[in-house]
Amino acid sequence: MTVEDSRWMARALQVAHKGQFWAAPNPHVGCVLVRDGEIIGEGFTQPAGGNHAEVEALKDAGNASGATAYVTLEPCAHHGRTGPCSEALIEAGVTRVVVGLEDPNPAVSGKGLSRLTDAGVQVTCGLMADQAREMLAGFLWRMERGRGRVTVKLASSLDGRTAMASGESHWITGAPARADVQQLRAASSVILTGSGSVITDDCRLTLRADELTLSGAEVERATRCPPQRAVLDSRLITPASAQVYDDSAATLLFHGADVACTKHYPDSVERIAVPLGGEGLDLHAVFAELNERQHNEILVESGPRLAGALLQEGLVDRILVYMAPVLMGSAANPLMMLPLDDMSQRVHLDTVDVRRVGQDWRFTLVPQVEH
Amino acid sequence: MTVEDSRWMARALQVAHKGQFWAAPNPHVGCVLVRDGEIIGEGFTQPAGGNHAEVEALKDAGNASGATAYVTLEPCAHHGRTGPCSEALIEAGVTRVVVGLEDPNPAVSGKGLSRLTDAGVQVTCGLMADQAREMLAGFLWRMERGRGRVTVKLASSLDGRTAMASGESHWITGAPARADVQQLRAASSVILTGSGSVITDDCRLTLRADELTLSGAEVERATRCPPQRAVLDSRLITPASAQVYDDSAATLLFHGADVACTKHYPDSVERIAVPLGGEGLDLHAVFAELNERQHNEILVESGPRLAGALLQEGLVDRILVYMAPVLMGSAANPLMMLPLDDMSQRVHLDTVDVRRVGQDWRFTLVPQVEH
Repeated sequence: MTVEDSRWMARALQVAHKGQFWAAPNPHVGCVLVRDGEIIGEGFTQPAGGNHAEVEALKDAGNASGATAYVTLEPCAHHGRTGPCSEALIEAGVTRVVVGLEDPNPAVSGKGLSRLTDAGVQVTCGLMADQAREMLAGFLWRMERGRGRVTVKLASSLDGRTAMASGESHWITGAPARADVQQLRAASSVILTGSGSVITDDCRLTLRADELTLSGAEVERATRCPPQRAVLDSRLITPASAQVYDDSAATLLFHGADVACTKHYPDSVERIAVPLGGEGLDLHAVFAELNERQHNEILVESGPRLAGALLQEGLVDRILVYMAPVLMGSAANPLMMLPLDDMSQRVHLDTVDVRRVGQDWRFTLVPQVEH
Repeated sequence: MTVEDSRWMARALQVAHKGQFWAAPNPHVGCVLVRDGEIIGEGFTQPAGGNHAEVEALKDAGNASGATAYVTLEPCAHHGRTGPCSEALIEAGVTRVVVGLEDPNPAVSGKGLSRLTDAGVQVTCGLMADQAREMLAGFLWRMERGRGRVTVKLASSLDGRTAMASGESHWITGAPARADVQQLRAASSVILTGSGSVITDDCRLTLRADELTLSGAEVERATRCPPQRAVLDSRLITPASAQVYDDSAATLLFHGADVACTKHYPDSVERIAVPLGGEGLDLHAVFAELNERQHNEILVESGPRLAGALLQEGLVDRILVYMAPVLMGSAANPLMMLPLDDMSQRVHLDTVDVRRVGQDWRFTLVPQVEH
């Protein structure tokens, strides 16, 4: 592999990024076709049912004979909703394929690469694999562990409080942090909350195009495939008139298996009964249902009770804290409800990233797995 | 003023910094003597009773005739424990003096500059005044507002907790953060705590030379003038055997005016009776006593009760939070005891600096003054 290869793969990663808001449940992949040191075609994953990145790039190039294809994820070999991309590359006369990451999807894994090699195409795999892996974390989590990536988002004061004792929490962070959260929502396939947040905040959990602070094309891609919503309400205590049940997006309503539903929720709401466990629903059962529905990136925007319960169940993969330089005081609600007794029980986190967002600070953290 | 002037004043500020650990109650000043584009002498403030920066620089130069002096703070004009520095500069034949900041000390203010001008010395004042002001914040606070600068230092988890409910708090932050705190102590003239911390932690609040992570010369200056300690113990409930009362440094013990002392505290302890106010001692009276004793930099290392009370009394000028990437849980003790009811009461802070210290994050914050 050469410096030129790295340059084109870096471009393919940039192109892949454009599909982040609409590709789910598919991975958002980028493809760049290069011939004689020049880009002759680029493409990224279209919404489910549409073209994959490779076919988009071939269409963009017109004639790709003798070209090298840089693809962030292994081209598929199976006939899904679209034809296999490895076949399309062979037919177009592409002579070399450089791949970022081998696809862990059992329907693909290695088969796309073999098909290309068998057809006499020169294949290299693993260039900038870490970057591709990071970009596709949610999809890979689902393929490899049978559960999408769970990100808990919290807005807190410097003294770690998320709301006043009364529930009042608007607004802890500033407009730039809220715009950042809007982009996070757009990149998620489902937004999960608890009954408490629905009742206290009447949260809508929708995308607000005017707050995304993105380019027109990006806003279009984000709003074309908005995230679904999911509410955990074991005893069905949330009112059917709550904003989270409006028709601006589909909503999954999880409740206890033995709870009778006496309310008439709107048609946009799908009720799912799951077993009870611990102090509410069996959270593992909830995530199994979300996995059935192929959700890659699961964003939790909840109160401290659900966030704490998820952490204690080992179901949190990433924590994003937007911290405002204010003190909300010792009577206010905690970051997470976590009743720990001594220092040995504290939860250690790896700090992945810290950056300023407006006047606030965003921490990206990953809970350390105990060994 | 020229670029050369800025260059030499920047050097004078660097030199001034060397005196930070031992100059109190005097301001730590730096002086650089320059002739024909070369430094011929440098000096910084010696411990109280010793030479000021200008005299040190003149001594270093030997012959300073025709030189320009760069001094971070206006040379003194009064006969204190040492002779007036303005006079020394004139006698040495210095022909130009560039000053950072005019001295707000009423015994000096402008008089040093006038004396120089009257003697035919060319005087310029105000070069890098902001930097000099920042460096001498504690001294300037005391001169201008009749109270040293109060810095509250807190070590917390990401969820804003400073100790488990049991009081257990060793160690929240890592060794690099604790070394940083040691340097903060060295640069302070008194370290203040409450009876709760003395009883729960048996804190010693001393400098530990081996944890300072400084050069040999700096450690020597830091340990030559270690900070005093001060304990607020309204009802004299702390045991006389507490480590904070050992003979490694002098300790001020503040207690209620009407509380009889039945314990025998060591000779290193000076008891000071102050009026009661609110839920404990009258904090303003405590600071008035500290001001009498000429304390410039007052470092508070206490529990959440005293920290919260100081903040609510408007007696906190700076907050340093060392935040560890851990969660200590919702049962743990708060950052500050601040019983606020609604969002409008929250305390807004200006973020002066955020940086990584080992695995922890240090926030430097200034409470916004209400208008």
